[in-house]
Amino acid sequence: MVIAQQALLEHWQGHRRLTRRFIEAFPEDQLFGFSIGGMRPFSAMALEMLSLAAGGIQGIATGRWTSVKDLDHHSKAPNPATRAELLARWDEVTGQIDSLWPKIPPSRFTEIDKAFGQWEGPVYALFLYLIDNEIHHRGQGSVYLRSLGIDPPAFYDRS
Amino acid sequence: MVIAQQALLEHWQGHRRLTRRFIEAFPEDQLFGFSIGGMRPFSAMALEMLSLAAGGIQGIATGRWTSVKDLDHHSKAPNPATRAELLARWDEVTGQIDSLWPKIPPSRFTEIDKAFGQWEGPVYALFLYLIDNEIHHRGQGSVYLRSLGIDPPAFYDRS
Repeated sequence: MVIAQQALLEHWQGHRRLTRRFIEAFPEDQLFGFSIGGMRPFSAMALEMLSLAAGGIQGIATGRWTSVKDLDHHSKAPNPATRAELLARWDEVTGQIDSLWPKIPPSRFTEIDKAFGQWEGPVYALFLYLIDNEIHHRGQGSVYLRSLGIDPPAFYDRS
Repeated sequence: MVIAQQALLEHWQGHRRLTRRFIEAFPEDQLFGFSIGGMRPFSAMALEMLSLAAGGIQGIATGRWTSVKDLDHHSKAPNPATRAELLARWDEVTGQIDSLWPKIPPSRFTEIDKAFGQWEGPVYALFLYLIDNEIHHRGQGSVYLRSLGIDPPAFYDRS
């Protein structure tokens, strides 16, 4: 074993701080409206990251997984419709992660579980997937920003 | 400690297999020529991933880091100019990683080192950065592909 549980939390939250700056970097109308190649606007990608993070930390910490169809970005529930609402929800999930993380026993990470009732694997792999998915979509968002003539927030800055 | 050394290797090589499929998915002229928003073509991003992976595994395994200016994508050395050359170099680095990884003592991952003579941190964080950087640029490549009317290889498939 070569990576500590606390280091993974810092790694995740560092990426989430960077993604938060991406949400702030978009002009609000473009956040909800701009698209390339028929892809979703960045707000929809951010909403996916949010519901996977909220459902993910709950599932990892408690073993209770929200099913895929009940995740916010798939459900009929009202979603954040402004940047302020999106950021408020982002910060709420940040707090949930910080509060649940210390309650996860280290042995949990090598257990096999089925994320969101659908994807089976060791918990560390399910966890890494959440971060990878966020980096992937944020990378897409960086092309949106460049295409809008806006310099994306620095990739290496996780402060 | 919650993630095993062998799991990190599999995680990395899984991402590299996916990126390899992205290189194959581009029409060859677009691989070297297509751009959005003044960004680099995907071939240049792939070359960056390659030189960071080759220099990264050497630095992590041996403590000998190539300096930033001598990395392939920054140096004046001739770079792969066709897809076949790029893929051949990709596969060569895959073999280097597989061969050096088992020689890394587990304690190495929590040592502090300076990647490429420039970025200081614990080795596990320097390692995660290599993967994150690849996911980030591959995400950008997925927008290029969508914009060209091509479905990107599936993100979840790391086979």
